[in-house]
Amino acid sequence: MVTKEKLFLGIDLGGTNLKIGVVTKSGRILEQKTSSIKHDKTIAGVVKNITAEVESLYRKYPSVSAVGLGVPGIYDVEKDVLFSAPNLPDWKNVRVKKILSKKIKLPIVVDNDANMHAIGEHFFGAGKNINNFVLLTLGTGIGGGLILNGEIFHGDHGFAGEVGHLVVEPNGERCGCGGKGCWERYAASHGIKLHLKNLSKVEEKNIVGMANRNLSEITPRMLGDLASIKNTEALKVWGVFGNYLGIGIATLINVLGVENFVIGGGISYAWDFFINSTRENALSHTYKFYKTRLKLKRASLGNNAGILGAAACVCVLNPRKHPCGV
Amino acid sequence: MVTKEKLFLGIDLGGTNLKIGVVTKSGRILEQKTSSIKHDKTIAGVVKNITAEVESLYRKYPSVSAVGLGVPGIYDVEKDVLFSAPNLPDWKNVRVKKILSKKIKLPIVVDNDANMHAIGEHFFGAGKNINNFVLLTLGTGIGGGLILNGEIFHGDHGFAGEVGHLVVEPNGERCGCGGKGCWERYAASHGIKLHLKNLSKVEEKNIVGMANRNLSEITPRMLGDLASIKNTEALKVWGVFGNYLGIGIATLINVLGVENFVIGGGISYAWDFFINSTRENALSHTYKFYKTRLKLKRASLGNNAGILGAAACVCVLNPRKHPCGV
Repeated sequence: MVTKEKLFLGIDLGGTNLKIGVVTKSGRILEQKTSSIKHDKTIAGVVKNITAEVESLYRKYPSVSAVGLGVPGIYDVEKDVLFSAPNLPDWKNVRVKKILSKKIKLPIVVDNDANMHAIGEHFFGAGKNINNFVLLTLGTGIGGGLILNGEIFHGDHGFAGEVGHLVVEPNGERCGCGGKGCWERYAASHGIKLHLKNLSKVEEKNIVGMANRNLSEITPRMLGDLASIKNTEALKVWGVFGNYLGIGIATLINVLGVENFVIGGGISYAWDFFINSTRENALSHTYKFYKTRLKLKRASLGNNAGILGAAACVCVLNPRKHPCGV
Repeated sequence: MVTKEKLFLGIDLGGTNLKIGVVTKSGRILEQKTSSIKHDKTIAGVVKNITAEVESLYRKYPSVSAVGLGVPGIYDVEKDVLFSAPNLPDWKNVRVKKILSKKIKLPIVVDNDANMHAIGEHFFGAGKNINNFVLLTLGTGIGGGLILNGEIFHGDHGFAGEVGHLVVEPNGERCGCGGKGCWERYAASHGIKLHLKNLSKVEEKNIVGMANRNLSEITPRMLGDLASIKNTEALKVWGVFGNYLGIGIATLINVLGVENFVIGGGISYAWDFFINSTRENALSHTYKFYKTRLKLKRASLGNNAGILGAAACVCVLNPRKHPCGV
């Protein structure tokens, strides 16, 4: 396909799938593909997969001028090191950009997937024209990306935005990071499980009856559906969840002095059932100043956030910091 | 006094005193003065005081080329608004820079005092050559300044760095900000009072006996002195204090991905008695990655931090952002 417009490839590497999209400068996706990496998650296997997809799309779209890649782990942009990726066990201390640059003859930018999502929302989504905001993705954990002064803030080694591990209960639940009382133990799907367990025996009986499942089998999605038919226990759990979400947001407000939050991830499906308690509890832990200023917005890029963010990273960001800015 | 070197005035406006210093580009203080503002804390009164001091020093040092002023409250640098200053009740929504610029014919930069302190440590002190760090001042509350990518990060309205209000106990102590469970209720002089109150009856009796004071009269300084003679209860209180200090630091590490902290303020007098538990508890709430990387440093500018920071702000910072950068 011949087009005069410059195009960009956005790649979203997950723990099970590789998504890739051909994206225009204005954020339109011309074509996208998803392929499984389940059969081979080794570095060589995934790199081979990425390379084949890029080559095939480049043949079809020769005006592709750069490639952005989001990786599911903590990545040091300056040193080009992916420290680790929880769902890709082989990928430890990997120089992702260097390895791919040997195979792909286009400029490549790599960053953490939540950062890519934040960049995507900043250029094409709910964070458009907002100079300072925190992106939160609510899933198994809480992912985060900090847009400060219009750019991703990476911190010393790419660890900035690990907001899922800000401490909300100093002596609370153990977390996979080695710490305890981390925010994501209370305000992500981990938290849903916990708050369900903390229901009274009577409440447990009621919700298990309604769901027609064991307590441990109730997913956030089911809990959202139960809330939408006004199940008391489901609404209660979302209220507790929302309160905890609000506490962490308050901490982010107080530390960063930002008033905009863009919230995505699977759990935002239940938005209507937690967002009021989130807002209320966030405001109850911050200066009154924020009462009229705090804006909690739903992320707007949905499942394409990864692709669009990775493409945005190469097509619109500051060329000084991003070698392939064009 | 005639000198060819360009000089800068650094002014530190507090709740009771006005400090002003003549500072060289390398951070040497040629002269400093402290005057009381107790008798007149009105805007007009303080402005008159500042103007007189500046004029007098300018006559003596005609190579003074700019003035930096740190104010004890939340200040919006872009809009030039001091929202409020807890210890200067008249100063609400004051356009400090505009008012002073009418009186003083030198370029003026105004910022929050903790930010000035952070800038001072960055250019002349413990934060030298450190691109990302958090300055903490431990006093009645916890002041904070964020140096990110080598510059102060202000957030949307100058509220960034209000780290004293990050939440460490969601249902904890009420705070003056309107919230509850704020960090500074546990890891500043407020916290010392609280942890003393939480001692057992026996412990209380012991420490009161040693201090020869009522429990409520024991100051952080006395508690430091008691710890230095190995008083068990004092050491215990510092341990609890240190743990709470560590929790907030962990949150800052996880949010910002920074590994350097510069800690000052009156309470750092007792450094040796809390810093080990601070470090240990911070590390127990973060990735193992930080074990060898976390650096908790004592601020090095002491009582001159305000003057030096305010001077640094006008003498060395980015001229693009600071009109009087020279």
